[in-house]
Amino acid sequence: MRVPLEREIARRVHAFQKLLKENGIDGALLVQNADQVYFTGTCHQAHLYIPAEGRPLYMVRRDVQRAGADARGCTVVPLRSFREIKDIIINAGLPLPERLGLEFDVLPLLYYRQYEKNLPPFVPVDCSPLIRKLRAVKSPLEIENLRMAARLMDRVMGQVPEFLAPGATEVELASLFEAAARRLGHEGFVRMRGVNAEVFYGHFLSGPSATVTSGFDGVVGGPGLTPAFPYGPGRREVRIGEPVLVDYPGVWQGYIVDITRVFAIGSLDRDLARAHEVALEIQSVLMHAARPGVTGGELWEAARALAARAGLEPHFMGCKNRVYFVGHGVGLELNDLPVIAANDPVPLEEGMVIALEPKFVFPDRGVVGIENTFVVRREGLERLSGFPDEIHYVRPRA
Amino acid sequence: MRVPLEREIARRVHAFQKLLKENGIDGALLVQNADQVYFTGTCHQAHLYIPAEGRPLYMVRRDVQRAGADARGCTVVPLRSFREIKDIIINAGLPLPERLGLEFDVLPLLYYRQYEKNLPPFVPVDCSPLIRKLRAVKSPLEIENLRMAARLMDRVMGQVPEFLAPGATEVELASLFEAAARRLGHEGFVRMRGVNAEVFYGHFLSGPSATVTSGFDGVVGGPGLTPAFPYGPGRREVRIGEPVLVDYPGVWQGYIVDITRVFAIGSLDRDLARAHEVALEIQSVLMHAARPGVTGGELWEAARALAARAGLEPHFMGCKNRVYFVGHGVGLELNDLPVIAANDPVPLEEGMVIALEPKFVFPDRGVVGIENTFVVRREGLERLSGFPDEIHYVRPRA
Repeated sequence: MRVPLEREIARRVHAFQKLLKENGIDGALLVQNADQVYFTGTCHQAHLYIPAEGRPLYMVRRDVQRAGADARGCTVVPLRSFREIKDIIINAGLPLPERLGLEFDVLPLLYYRQYEKNLPPFVPVDCSPLIRKLRAVKSPLEIENLRMAARLMDRVMGQVPEFLAPGATEVELASLFEAAARRLGHEGFVRMRGVNAEVFYGHFLSGPSATVTSGFDGVVGGPGLTPAFPYGPGRREVRIGEPVLVDYPGVWQGYIVDITRVFAIGSLDRDLARAHEVALEIQSVLMHAARPGVTGGELWEAARALAARAGLEPHFMGCKNRVYFVGHGVGLELNDLPVIAANDPVPLEEGMVIALEPKFVFPDRGVVGIENTFVVRREGLERLSGFPDEIHYVRPRA
Repeated sequence: MRVPLEREIARRVHAFQKLLKENGIDGALLVQNADQVYFTGTCHQAHLYIPAEGRPLYMVRRDVQRAGADARGCTVVPLRSFREIKDIIINAGLPLPERLGLEFDVLPLLYYRQYEKNLPPFVPVDCSPLIRKLRAVKSPLEIENLRMAARLMDRVMGQVPEFLAPGATEVELASLFEAAARRLGHEGFVRMRGVNAEVFYGHFLSGPSATVTSGFDGVVGGPGLTPAFPYGPGRREVRIGEPVLVDYPGVWQGYIVDITRVFAIGSLDRDLARAHEVALEIQSVLMHAARPGVTGGELWEAARALAARAGLEPHFMGCKNRVYFVGHGVGLELNDLPVIAANDPVPLEEGMVIALEPKFVFPDRGVVGIENTFVVRREGLERLSGFPDEIHYVRPRA
């Protein structure tokens, strides 16, 4: 595995350097873990300097030894203080950057001011959009990791009927789901880009709980256990005859897929079951419509139109606090590009990996719908997650 | 519960406003979730403006309705864009800040530039140190949450002997430990302040695994499952006769305690068992030495001297990549102030809550030691976590 990863990382760095040159950026100083993993294969307390030309410098505060063992395609240099960055760049025979790429969306002001203080004057340029664009298209190696993550989640979803029972609380059921995932090698931490982008595992939500929105930018929020962490499962007991929404990212080697299934103990009201069918229909239409060149906006509109035709538009992707996307990229972060959102003009490209999640929200009752993760191929979408899409009915037990 | 929390939040805001005035800051614009929780009781996609005088404005992008229901001591205002911040402040009858407090350590550059663009010129002042100082001293209500978190972890630690068995992998055992914690109401996400401060649950590490350091700023790193997330449990199988280090934060209503215990299947080499005894001795000495007025530096030195007297200094708090602290504050973040670190001049105050963690690292063999969470009282430390400190020996089973 070592040689291909090394070659792949060299290719990623080269592609980024091409973007840097095209944008007149002399080099980029990166800190975000997901970006570190993308360009070195691992992450540490470090600053990664990628010059527009030349070998990247991985300046590591901690842990130098492990970074030396795990990082690929870069020179690992110990770093004690911001003051040393300048000399490290000079000593590597690289020019000091005049236009410096930085991750504006995640770089804390404190670091920025340290760079200002310890480097010769530079013009900061936001290079997060470039990295995100690059990362949106996945390589075969990345897709293999995503496939493993999807398989893992398929297996975990398959275990839900074994433990889903009326009277159990959401958080109890979540604990069983999460333990099953972890045992199979789920890496745990779900990376999401942005301020306060806190994700803890996922959502195991019963009936009306799934309709509770939150600060989280998604159709489903969840009540959480307390207002101090107001997302995800709460303490509500699952009842017979309501939709149980199980919406979980899965992580394998840093790569994230996103999967949702609906379970129900006993039966489900006919209108909810019908709405679920409409969600599957939307998924099926999107699967055929989504191919290179089609925009997120076009896919959103196709999905919305189908929801409207079924008389379900008021429930589509939320009610009061709805979202205007029906899918999103996944990869090293849960919110990779592209976004399958209203008016989004970005065309799909071969190798992008997206989670499509048509869902319908019924106030006081619950959420139905589906989410699977797909690779954009020349001829349409390739599906990574395989667990059956229909509502999974579980026989009531005590 | 509502009335006391409201009163408490009013008190916190008032104390912060006093600090703002003392530092000539006209108001602070805060985003970090932990700080939002501290000053409002909850967290959302929001900017919290705390003027040096007057009622805080909680400008919420998402979720306005839930923020309105859960937030205390502030006026909740919907926010659609950075552009509106200025008018919201003016419309509330508040002066626009000339010296503006910001969380330099966590505020992303993108937000900062938006503030620059959409507010009249201001002088930015780092107010994170003020908030962290304020948050270091806990109220009775906060200590009650910490006590609940400690009780929860006591119960989970008590379950380890039930499932610890040779041949099980670290991650399998971690999954059982974590599920037990979650079932009891562990809130899951462990907040830690800083760049890339990723924490996933904690460490369930066997023998030499516990000696693997990482980018994480702690004595214990752990191998993780892959270089993409290089911390925490790996896939090593637990063996008979080695120390199993179980080091986990517990979270209750947003409040975090930190606890470590050592387990062993069968027996343990005499020198490791002795080092554990020395760790308990250090804990006992620190428990009596730590009281208001004593500095972190003095406590570190007392701990180091005891380790040296026992001939164990080369193993104290790490070997190759050691850390120079023996404890840290805990609260809404795992790395609250104070730090019980070498040369730290900050004196303890009544009401601070600290985790003390004297540990000894033996290369290729494992880690022994202890960690408990304590409240600083006038007469010394009050211990919150109660599970017995000694090495817990488990009988071997298949």
